[in-house]
Amino acid sequence: MEGIKRVGYKPFQAKICSAEEAALHIQHNDLVGMSGFTGSGYPKDIPQALAQNAQRLHTEGRPFSIRLVTGASTGPELDGSLAQAQAVSFRSPYNSEKAMRALINAGQVAYVDGHLSRTGDSVDAAIWGEMDVAVIEVSAITEDGALIPSSSVGNNQTWLDNAKTVLLEVNSWQSADFLGFHDIYRHEGQGAFQPIPLTEVNGRVGKNTFWVDPQKVKGVVLTHTPDRNADFSAPDDAAEKIAGYLLDFYSHEVKKGRLPPSLFPLQSGVGNIANAVLAGLKKGPFRNLQGFTEVIQDGMLELLDEGVMEKVSATAFSLSPAQAAAFNTHAQRYQGRVILRPQAISNHAELIRRFHIIAMNGLLEADIYGNVNSTHVMGSAIQNGIGGSGDFARNALLSVFMTPSIAKGGKISTIVPAVPHVDHIAQDVHVVVTEQGLADLRGLSPVQRAQKIIAICAHPLYRPMLEEYFQHAQKQSFSFHKPVLLPQAFSWHQRFIETGSMLVSS
Amino acid sequence: MEGIKRVGYKPFQAKICSAEEAALHIQHNDLVGMSGFTGSGYPKDIPQALAQNAQRLHTEGRPFSIRLVTGASTGPELDGSLAQAQAVSFRSPYNSEKAMRALINAGQVAYVDGHLSRTGDSVDAAIWGEMDVAVIEVSAITEDGALIPSSSVGNNQTWLDNAKTVLLEVNSWQSADFLGFHDIYRHEGQGAFQPIPLTEVNGRVGKNTFWVDPQKVKGVVLTHTPDRNADFSAPDDAAEKIAGYLLDFYSHEVKKGRLPPSLFPLQSGVGNIANAVLAGLKKGPFRNLQGFTEVIQDGMLELLDEGVMEKVSATAFSLSPAQAAAFNTHAQRYQGRVILRPQAISNHAELIRRFHIIAMNGLLEADIYGNVNSTHVMGSAIQNGIGGSGDFARNALLSVFMTPSIAKGGKISTIVPAVPHVDHIAQDVHVVVTEQGLADLRGLSPVQRAQKIIAICAHPLYRPMLEEYFQHAQKQSFSFHKPVLLPQAFSWHQRFIETGSMLVSS
Repeated sequence: MEGIKRVGYKPFQAKICSAEEAALHIQHNDLVGMSGFTGSGYPKDIPQALAQNAQRLHTEGRPFSIRLVTGASTGPELDGSLAQAQAVSFRSPYNSEKAMRALINAGQVAYVDGHLSRTGDSVDAAIWGEMDVAVIEVSAITEDGALIPSSSVGNNQTWLDNAKTVLLEVNSWQSADFLGFHDIYRHEGQGAFQPIPLTEVNGRVGKNTFWVDPQKVKGVVLTHTPDRNADFSAPDDAAEKIAGYLLDFYSHEVKKGRLPPSLFPLQSGVGNIANAVLAGLKKGPFRNLQGFTEVIQDGMLELLDEGVMEKVSATAFSLSPAQAAAFNTHAQRYQGRVILRPQAISNHAELIRRFHIIAMNGLLEADIYGNVNSTHVMGSAIQNGIGGSGDFARNALLSVFMTPSIAKGGKISTIVPAVPHVDHIAQDVHVVVTEQGLADLRGLSPVQRAQKIIAICAHPLYRPMLEEYFQHAQKQSFSFHKPVLLPQAFSWHQRFIETGSMLVSS
Repeated sequence: MEGIKRVGYKPFQAKICSAEEAALHIQHNDLVGMSGFTGSGYPKDIPQALAQNAQRLHTEGRPFSIRLVTGASTGPELDGSLAQAQAVSFRSPYNSEKAMRALINAGQVAYVDGHLSRTGDSVDAAIWGEMDVAVIEVSAITEDGALIPSSSVGNNQTWLDNAKTVLLEVNSWQSADFLGFHDIYRHEGQGAFQPIPLTEVNGRVGKNTFWVDPQKVKGVVLTHTPDRNADFSAPDDAAEKIAGYLLDFYSHEVKKGRLPPSLFPLQSGVGNIANAVLAGLKKGPFRNLQGFTEVIQDGMLELLDEGVMEKVSATAFSLSPAQAAAFNTHAQRYQGRVILRPQAISNHAELIRRFHIIAMNGLLEADIYGNVNSTHVMGSAIQNGIGGSGDFARNALLSVFMTPSIAKGGKISTIVPAVPHVDHIAQDVHVVVTEQGLADLRGLSPVQRAQKIIAICAHPLYRPMLEEYFQHAQKQSFSFHKPVLLPQAFSWHQRFIETGSMLVSS
């Protein structure tokens, strides 16, 4: 069995057990830190065994739920199975799994949607009490007992440092060549007012491996289950238009001398539009690109393959099945050019400012003043979470938000009079781009921003409605710095809730 | 005349002229960068002469207005006189002057309310085109032509670097002992991915003085006009209660091991409540405090006087007339313990994170979920601006917002169902404290936050109304992660607009 070969440390070989045995170390109401970021590097077998435990106990009429923190999103084996077993009472900092989302939005799971850079700090400070158990996927364990990370780093070292009990999953599906891809560095510590010494996106300031007190390791489980890899859609017309406007804008900024010809390091959110922009960069005029981001998607790996991008720093991969298989086979090709870091570092304000990051993120909706809602559908239903977008948008040199101008076949306008939840304030939204066009909002007053967003970004279906709202607001608002009609501000959302469309039915 | 003695550089002695002559260098539609931060260190005479010019031209039927950027707020001689003369078409990044505010809220001045740390970047990037003129107050000019700053640093070096023409006001009212109080350092520059080397709040990484190309200096004006120093009110009962809760909370955090006994460096917003908290610290158990903030108010100087605070970094003073006079007499007493820096550095994300800042800021209103509106009365009328609160709240270790629970004699609740403008998202609001109590919101879900804010922070006049709203929202919301009733969300604000009170009249 290949798995055993990956456990080089003798004392841990003696700890090898079934997922069912390992899961018994987790008690009701425990604060459990699991690995996992954007569907990669999360434990697969222990969470499923834990879900079975919970269901058995529930059948016996006994309570069982855990308080669960991760890096970010995981997969069906983790959030999915635990949600189906009603085995989670609290979840943070990010979730994109459907069954878990349904429980959160039903008010059955308390969810704390947090900045990804800061969740580790909360655990260090014992904001939720002490961490009871860490469940961490690794790709292998060295002869010295060092843990070689797998496809994500997330908060793993912080969980390993804080947890009283540690359970490891050694995943032989993950590349056997991961040693050297990670830079495990922790900066926090009271009174240490020192800079983070990182000065290049692919620089190294930490170790290759996680470290853990062997005494805390109570179980080692072998698995061969793949990450939750999903295919990307081929870029559609809207995504290609958005990418086109954005590349033109970058060329303009280079001409103005505001960006160097190789741009500044790119942060790219997750999803099809972000991937389309990366695909667009392959054809664009820019070379020697760098990435400083949370997640490496297919598009970024392709930029490395084609020599368009030189190097990239992230905290996780999020690849399609084909790209994941290719990476696992040819990992050595990327050594030294791809570095995975703890999310406290990949998303750290100090580094995002230092590297003059160009941040590109998606959104649910933007208002006419450029405030962005990234998370709460109709203001109350969480979609995923703010993730790293707050870390990047506030501290980036240039903060771009991208979206098609309509959703649900035109029943929703992504440009609205007011957003019922704000994740990104107008000061942190420099550029909004839809398939209709790109609005550069830098240096504009609220009224100027509104005029530009309505004229450039809104869909023609909704543009006249926005113009009418804004005209009335400019006459009837309480005041005129940022005109707003309070009674009508959310009328579009209320109409959608009541009729299924933001359009006024004729 | 004492003023002339302060101009040590011979070529600049020849440039000494009247404010009227200097003001003639400023043309219609010029982008003008002036000094000034929190009513200190702003030019006094040239802006008044400029206002007279504008009025004369307007009388002749000719257009005249400038586009004005500063550090932050100035005084009546600058924003006041230019507003009264209708001589400003554009203003950024911060204003607290009444006449200017009235023009902004009438829609007659385009106002860009910006993060104070980033305005300089916008000018460097020529977002508003090239800077035409800089008008900078200094306390003296050395024999070598170096400029000794006065009571604020703001964006002055950035303006001096960018402007095509420079006008100086040498203010002999300012202390003659200011040399050595300032650390003038600029970090920006494409591709320089280096840390800011500051590792102590009173460390030095730059120069004592501003530098300017002497060829650009077209006028030097001598003045003796004081800064706009205003008295602080004696702390009232609400302010003292807020201070008391906060000090108890800090003691609790020290016991928990989350803060060291000397706390971490403090950032303190401007105003009477902030000053009351500083006064409370005199009596509290904490010693060897440090400050890393925007503005040094009376309270902080008193902490230094009493040996409770060791050292403080800021970008400006904002003192009462008595304290300003005392400082000007005894400035040497503070040498080495007080450092004034450019606002791009005093408010820099990298340093705010590094120094584990405890940020304490005021607000206009918070919603039951902990989202904060710091700026827009009824969602549309700007009060002052976000200032540095966004720089600090996002990147601080601990972000506290303080407010009395009611305003206007009870006609306004500062805790509302929803805020019609968001400056600080719930993730950046760790603690809300009113005279009713202190709510520690860290690690809580939206529903838990709402329960705590309503129970602890709201005024008894409004608590039952908030409870009723929240109960209905928990039943009738579209979804239940963050329950909201969209049609009623702003009904309290609308009632205030229509009836003059958020209370339902009986």
